[in-house]
Amino acid sequence: MVRVAIIGASGYTGAESIRIILRHSEAELVCLTALPAECGAVEDVFGQFKGRCNLQIGQLDLDKLADIADVALCCLPHKISMEFVPKLLDAGLKVIDFSADYRLKDPKVYEKFYDVKHTDTANLARAVFGLPELFREQIKGAELVANPGCFPTGALLAIAPLLKENLIETDSIIVNAVTGASGAGRNPSDKFHFPNMNENLFAYGVGSHRHTPEMEQIAAEIAGTDVRILFQPHAGPFDRGIGSTVYCYPKGKINSKQLSQLYNDFYANEPFVQMCDGAPNVKDVAGTNYCHIFVTCVKGRVVSFSAIDNLVKGASGQAVQNMNIIFGLEETLGLK
Amino acid sequence: MVRVAIIGASGYTGAESIRIILRHSEAELVCLTALPAECGAVEDVFGQFKGRCNLQIGQLDLDKLADIADVALCCLPHKISMEFVPKLLDAGLKVIDFSADYRLKDPKVYEKFYDVKHTDTANLARAVFGLPELFREQIKGAELVANPGCFPTGALLAIAPLLKENLIETDSIIVNAVTGASGAGRNPSDKFHFPNMNENLFAYGVGSHRHTPEMEQIAAEIAGTDVRILFQPHAGPFDRGIGSTVYCYPKGKINSKQLSQLYNDFYANEPFVQMCDGAPNVKDVAGTNYCHIFVTCVKGRVVSFSAIDNLVKGASGQAVQNMNIIFGLEETLGLK
Amino acid sequence: MVRVAIIGASGYTGAESIRIILRHSEAELVCLTALPAECGAVEDVFGQFKGRCNLQIGQLDLDKLADIADVALCCLPHKISMEFVPKLLDAGLKVIDFSADYRLKDPKVYEKFYDVKHTDTANLARAVFGLPELFREQIKGAELVANPGCFPTGALLAIAPLLKENLIETDSIIVNAVTGASGAGRNPSDKFHFPNMNENLFAYGVGSHRHTPEMEQIAAEIAGTDVRILFQPHAGPFDRGIGSTVYCYPKGKINSKQLSQLYNDFYANEPFVQMCDGAPNVKDVAGTNYCHIFVTCVKGRVVSFSAIDNLVKGASGQAVQNMNIIFGLEETLGLK
Amino acid sequence: MVRVAIIGASGYTGAESIRIILRHSEAELVCLTALPAECGAVEDVFGQFKGRCNLQIGQLDLDKLADIADVALCCLPHKISMEFVPKLLDAGLKVIDFSADYRLKDPKVYEKFYDVKHTDTANLARAVFGLPELFREQIKGAELVANPGCFPTGALLAIAPLLKENLIETDSIIVNAVTGASGAGRNPSDKFHFPNMNENLFAYGVGSHRHTPEMEQIAAEIAGTDVRILFQPHAGPFDRGIGSTVYCYPKGKINSKQLSQLYNDFYANEPFVQMCDGAPNVKDVAGTNYCHIFVTCVKGRVVSFSAIDNLVKGASGQAVQNMNIIFGLEETLGLK
Repeated sequence: MVRVAIIGASGYTGAESIRIILRHSEAELVCLTALPAECGAVEDVFGQFKGRCNLQIGQLDLDKLADIADVALCCLPHKISMEFVPKLLDAGLKVIDFSADYRLKDPKVYEKFYDVKHTDTANLARAVFGLPELFREQIKGAELVANPGCFPTGALLAIAPLLKENLIETDSIIVNAVTGASGAGRNPSDKFHFPNMNENLFAYGVGSHRHTPEMEQIAAEIAGTDVRILFQPHAGPFDRGIGSTVYCYPKGKINSKQLSQLYNDFYANEPFVQMCDGAPNVKDVAGTNYCHIFVTCVKGRVVSFSAIDNLVKGASGQAVQNMNIIFGLEETLGLK
Repeated sequence: MVRVAIIGASGYTGAESIRIILRHSEAELVCLTALPAECGAVEDVFGQFKGRCNLQIGQLDLDKLADIADVALCCLPHKISMEFVPKLLDAGLKVIDFSADYRLKDPKVYEKFYDVKHTDTANLARAVFGLPELFREQIKGAELVANPGCFPTGALLAIAPLLKENLIETDSIIVNAVTGASGAGRNPSDKFHFPNMNENLFAYGVGSHRHTPEMEQIAAEIAGTDVRILFQPHAGPFDRGIGSTVYCYPKGKINSKQLSQLYNDFYANEPFVQMCDGAPNVKDVAGTNYCHIFVTCVKGRVVSFSAIDNLVKGASGQAVQNMNIIFGLEETLGLK
Repeated sequence: MVRVAIIGASGYTGAESIRIILRHSEAELVCLTALPAECGAVEDVFGQFKGRCNLQIGQLDLDKLADIADVALCCLPHKISMEFVPKLLDAGLKVIDFSADYRLKDPKVYEKFYDVKHTDTANLARAVFGLPELFREQIKGAELVANPGCFPTGALLAIAPLLKENLIETDSIIVNAVTGASGAGRNPSDKFHFPNMNENLFAYGVGSHRHTPEMEQIAAEIAGTDVRILFQPHAGPFDRGIGSTVYCYPKGKINSKQLSQLYNDFYANEPFVQMCDGAPNVKDVAGTNYCHIFVTCVKGRVVSFSAIDNLVKGASGQAVQNMNIIFGLEETLGLK
Repeated sequence: MVRVAIIGASGYTGAESIRIILRHSEAELVCLTALPAECGAVEDVFGQFKGRCNLQIGQLDLDKLADIADVALCCLPHKISMEFVPKLLDAGLKVIDFSADYRLKDPKVYEKFYDVKHTDTANLARAVFGLPELFREQIKGAELVANPGCFPTGALLAIAPLLKENLIETDSIIVNAVTGASGAGRNPSDKFHFPNMNENLFAYGVGSHRHTPEMEQIAAEIAGTDVRILFQPHAGPFDRGIGSTVYCYPKGKINSKQLSQLYNDFYANEPFVQMCDGAPNVKDVAGTNYCHIFVTCVKGRVVSFSAIDNLVKGASGQAVQNMNIIFGLEETLGLK
C-alpha cells in the first residue's frame, strides 16, 4: 500500500487527488495539509467527501510525515512549492509537484515568467517532467516529478508524434485552447463569478501565458530542436476539460490517413491516449484521465484536436499515473 | 423627457436599469453614481455598454442632482439606502428605492430582520409599495416608491387573486422558489464562484429569508387579514429568473377552470402579467418585464406557478414601470 | 466475480451502470444489449468508454446469457421491461429492474398511471422494492428487485425517519423537487434541446407525475398507514442531481435538534446517507451514490432537504448497491 | 413606418427578428409565415412573446404580402430560400435573405459546398453582401441583400482593416471560432441535446465548413486579391455568441499600438463596432448588435479577437441594420 500525503489539499487539485486516491486499491491517504485558515475535517472543506473520508486537513508536520508517508502529492502554488519540496525530499518522500517550480529547466526562464528567483535549483536539475507518454522511463526512477501543466499536457499529446518524427515546421505552431472554469482555481474572482462567467467565453493571457515556455521546452526536447509556439488560451462556461486545437505546417507531403496511422502507432500502448475518428468531445473525458485525439489535414495544414480533463489528466490523475509508475504499480490503478 | 439618475449604478440592478433607460423613448440617463472605488466610465465598469453610453459613474453630488434629474432609481443596499433617500427627496426628486428600507411598514419588523435601527421612519410612513398590479393608484402620486423584492414580486403575483377573493387559507401558504445566480449580486463569493455554482442547486435562507416578512405584509394587505407564509428560496445554475411554485389550501371547493377564469379576469388589463396553459418557463421571461403564471388544482390544493426575471420585473424593470406610472407615461415604455 | 449483463445499455442509466461496474472490483461486465438500431461497440455508442471497455452492445440472446451472467441490470423503459424480465428470471438470472413495471404493488394503480395492462403480475408479487436503507433484509434474498425511481429515492430518504416514527401528518406532505436534465433520458426533444433548456427552469407533470403513486405506496409501507403526497417536479439547467424539499406538518411538538438526532440515529449505519448541518448542495453528490440530507423546523412545519444524483443513487448506483447486497458483497463496492 | 414581413418566422432567427422589430420605433410587423406544421399564434410558437405580439404565423400568401409589406426578412434555410426570394422580389418587396443562397457570387462554389444547383442566378448577380461596415453604399440602393453568415461576420470584422490596408499575408489566415448552441438552430439533435451539449466543447465541420468560401470571397473583395482562410468552428455550452480568434502573419513590421490605431480609425464612425483594450467577452455583446474587437501582436503574428451575438449581429440584428440603411432610417433604430 502506497502511503500518500497531499500537501495543499484545500484547492481543486487537492480535492481531485483525494477523490482519486480514495478509489485506488493500492494507495491510501495518510495525511492532508493546508494553510491554517483552510484546515478542518475534509468533509467540512469539501462537502463531496461526507462519509467518504474521515481525515482532517491539518498543518504540515514534516517529522511525522517522514514516518507515515511514502509520497507527497504537492498541490501548492508556484513559489510556495519550492519552499516545501526540498523539505519533503529530505524527509525521504518521493514528491510529485503540481506547481510550475520544477518544470522549466532554465531558472532564468522561470524567473522571467514567474517574476521570482528560483530558490531550489539543485532539485530543479534532477526533476523529471511527468508526462508518462513521453518520459515514462525517467519517471520510473524519479525522486521528484514535475507534474505537467494542464494546457501543456493537452497540447503536447496532440502533437508529440509529429514532433518526434520531425514532420512539422517548428517555428509556426499555434495552440488554441479553451479551458473549463475550474482551471482558475478555488478563489472567487470577478471573472469567474457565476453571473459573469456563465454564458461567457473569453481569451486571456494574450501573448504571455506562463504555459508557453513549458510547452516550448518540452516540444523542443521531443523534437530535438528549438520549437516556437503561439499559445492562446480561452475560458469557457463549463467546469472541467480543455479542448485544444493545434495548427501546424507539415514539412513535406502528408495526408490524413498517414497522420492517423502515425498517431495510432505512436500511442498504441498508451492506456490513456485514445484516437478518435472525428474531433473529440471535452465531455467524453470529463472526470477521467483520458486524452482523446483527432488529427487530420486541412488545406495544407495539419490540425490536431485533443481533449482532456484539466483536473485529471491535466493535474491530479496524471500525478497518480506518475505515482503508479514510480512505485511499480499497474499504471491505470485508481484511474479506470 | 424624464431625467433619470441611478444611485448605486455599479451593481447588477444598476446595470439593468441603465440598459432599460437607454431604450426608453421618453426618459434619459443624466447621472450615475457609485462608491468612489466603483466609479469610472460606464463602459469600463460594464463592458456591455461600450458605444452605448458615454456617461461616467461618479460620486453623488446632491446639489447638482437637484438641477438635472427628476427621479432617482436608488439601487443601494439596505441600510445605505435610508441614508441617501431622505436627501434625494429633499433635493426634490421622486425616488424609487430598490432596497428593503422602505418596504416593511413596521420598523420593528425591519429591525428584527435587518439587524439595524431604522433611521428614516418619517419617509417610511409615506412610501408606497411599488407593485403596480396591486397598488397602481397609490403609485401614481407617490414621491417615494419602495420597489418590491424579487421573490415577493413573483410570489405575490402568483396568489394575489386568491388572496383578494379570500379563496385560500392564509395560515398555510408555502412559497418554494428557485432564483438564478444574478440574485446574489455582483460581489464574488464562494457559493457563487462558477465552479461551485455551475451544475449545483441548493436551498438557502432556511427559515429566515428576509423576503418573508415583506411577502406576509403585502399578502395581508391584499387579503385584509393576517397571512402566514413559509417561504423557501433556492439558487440554481442560471443567470436570470425566478420560478415560484406556491402551494395553498382552498377555503371551499374550487376547480382549475374557475381558478383560470379568476386569474384571467384579475389580470385582464395588466400588460405584464400573462396567463399560461401550463407551467411557465423561466427562460420565456428572461430579459423581459413579464410575469407568466399558471394556476391549477392538484389533490385538493391550489398550486400556482409564476416566472419572472429577477433583475427586470423583480427589480429594474418594475422600477421603470413605476417611474412610468408616476410620470404619467405609457406604462410599458422602455419595457416592451 | 459477479457476472453482470446490462439489458438496455444504450441509454443514460445503461452508460452509468457500465461506468460503475468498470470500477467494481468484484463484478465484471459480460454482456450489453440494446435495440438493433442502437447496437455497436460501446465506445462508438458512448465516446466516454474509448479504451475503457471493449464490449459490443449487441442484441439479446437469452440462451447465451444464462451461461455467462449471474445478474441482469435491466435498464429498459416501462412496459418493455415486463416483456423481458420474466425471461431473464427464467434464464436463472437475478434481475434488478430500473423500470416502473415492478414497483407498484397494485396492478390497477400501475395500469392507471402507465396506461397499459400489467402482463407479469406473478413476478410483480415477488418483486422487492430496492431501497436498501429501508428494505435491506428483503433485498438480500431477492430474485427480482424493482429499483426505485429517482424522485422517490430522494423524497423517501428525506422523510423516512418521520414516517417510521409516526411523527408527521400523512395527508399533507408536499414534495417539491428539481431534477437535472439527464432525467429526461437520451432522446432529443424540444424541451431539452440545449438552447431551450439552458438558462431555463420549469415545472412539469403537474398533478400527474408517475412517481407519485410510487412515493405514496412506499411511504405508506414505512408509516403503516395511508400517505398522501403532493409531488411537484421541476427541471433545471444542469446534468445530474435532484434537490428535494419536503414540507410536512409534525403531529406533535418537535424541534430541530430532536429532528437532527432522530435522523442521525436512523441513518447511523447507512454508508450512503449523510446528514448535513445546512441545506445540501446537489453538486456535492453528483457522480456519487450518496444522499445528503438536512432537516429542520420552520414556522411549525418540518422541512427536509435531500440531494442525490438521479443517475447514481437515483438509478444505476442504487442498482449496484442492490446487487452487492444480493450477492453478499460489501455494500459499497464500486460505489466509493 | 416600414412594414416588415418575416418569412420563416418559426426558427431562432425568426424569433430574434420579431423581438427586434417589436422594439423598432419606425418599423412594424405585418406578416409572419412558416411551414404549415409550424404555424399558429406567435405566443404559442414562442412563449416569450405572450402579450407582446398578437400576430399569427401563417402560410405565405404572396398576393396579400405585396399589398401590406415593404420588406421581407427571409429566414428560410438555404435552397428553400432561392425558391421564394424571386417571388418576393417580383411582388415588389425588398428582400433581406438570411440563407447562403445569395452570398456566394460564383454558383459553382455554391453548388460545390451546398450540393444543389443554384436556380436563381439572375438575382444572385445583383444581390449585395449585407455587411454594412464594408458595403454600406451598395446596401443603400439594394433590392436584395444577402445577410452574412454569423461566422463570416465575426471573422471579417476582426480582420477587415488588415485586409483593406494590405498588411497581412493572405495565404495563411487561421480563424478559430467558438459559437453558442443557438447556432445549431431549433431542431433537436443528439449533439445539442442538453445532457450532451452541457459541459461540452467540440470542434465540427473540420476542413469543410460552408462559411469558409463566404469568408474567402468577401476577404478577397476587401483585399483586392485572393485570400485563403483556414476556418475551424467549435461549439460551446452557451446560448448566444461567437468568439473568434484570428491568427495572421503581418507582411512587414507592425506593432500593437499601430494596429490599435489602424482599427480605431477604420471603425471610428461605426456605431456597432467597438474596440477593446483586451480580449472581448462574448457575454458583453449577447443580446446586442455590437461587435467587440481587440487586436495585438504576439510573437511576430497579428492576433485579432472579435465577439458578436450570432443571432443578432450574426443574423437578425444585422438584417435590421441593413433594413434601416435601405429605407434611409437611422442605422441604429431598434438596435440600441
